[in-house]
Amino acid sequence: MTERPIPPSATLESALYAEDLLAAETFYSEIIGLSVILRQPGRHVFFRAGQSVLLIFNAAATTQPPTIGQTLAVPPHGSEGRGHYCFSIPAADIDRWCDHLQNKGIAIESDIHWPNGARSIYVRDPAGNSVEFADPALWSQGRY
Amino acid sequence: MTERPIPPSATLESALYAEDLLAAETFYSEIIGLSVILRQPGRHVFFRAGQSVLLIFNAAATTQPPTIGQTLAVPPHGSEGRGHYCFSIPAADIDRWCDHLQNKGIAIESDIHWPNGARSIYVRDPAGNSVEFADPALWSQGRY
Repeated sequence: MTERPIPPSATLESALYAEDLLAAETFYSEIIGLSVILRQPGRHVFFRAGQSVLLIFNAAATTQPPTIGQTLAVPPHGSEGRGHYCFSIPAADIDRWCDHLQNKGIAIESDIHWPNGARSIYVRDPAGNSVEFADPALWSQGRY
Repeated sequence: MTERPIPPSATLESALYAEDLLAAETFYSEIIGLSVILRQPGRHVFFRAGQSVLLIFNAAATTQPPTIGQTLAVPPHGSEGRGHYCFSIPAADIDRWCDHLQNKGIAIESDIHWPNGARSIYVRDPAGNSVEFADPALWSQGRY
């Protein structure tokens, strides 16, 4: 009988999928300003988002099972369709993000003022994923 | 001319998809130990993971566009296939997680010792998503 370990207290990696990794890199690195920490052309590009990492994969590559005997046998994954991811952004910066994204030709698809007072804006990355920028008060304990 | 705002310094939300939200809830809440912070039967169940939130959506619901005039017009998203997500887990707890998950009948699909010394284990959630538990040293600055 083992006890359950202490539950995880943080997200380390979040994943989205994109066929065009170069377009994804331009979006997340040049427009949003994240640092690229690793890239494997045709397979993935990874970005730092504070203490966690945003992984963008080409599902055509990652749905392939590892070959027998492969040293780093990462299990296959990969999806089709539009994923979702949300950056934590100070509330005071949201207007600035709206301006910046629109100046780069990126439409604000939705701008939501939640019942708890927090605000979110939503755009699409080049692959069509729904990317949100939200005040972390959205999920402050006891406010939702 | 606006300057780019300060880049995001944290992930607020990560998303995975599951048709069977009850099975997802049992897995993430009872087996992994996350707190449920919101649920809408048939559409989603959300869990706290420290400062960020893990969102599990039923894509059949979230791929529907919002109706005209809907107050909280969340843009549609939703994918098919197997996503990926990784919890940050202290290195010292990884053996304990292996034991706990296996005791619950969950197979460890892969157990990787990375070249930088960090370790990851991988399991499947009930929807088939690839869920990793990793030592955050995996992505420590300058180690990858």
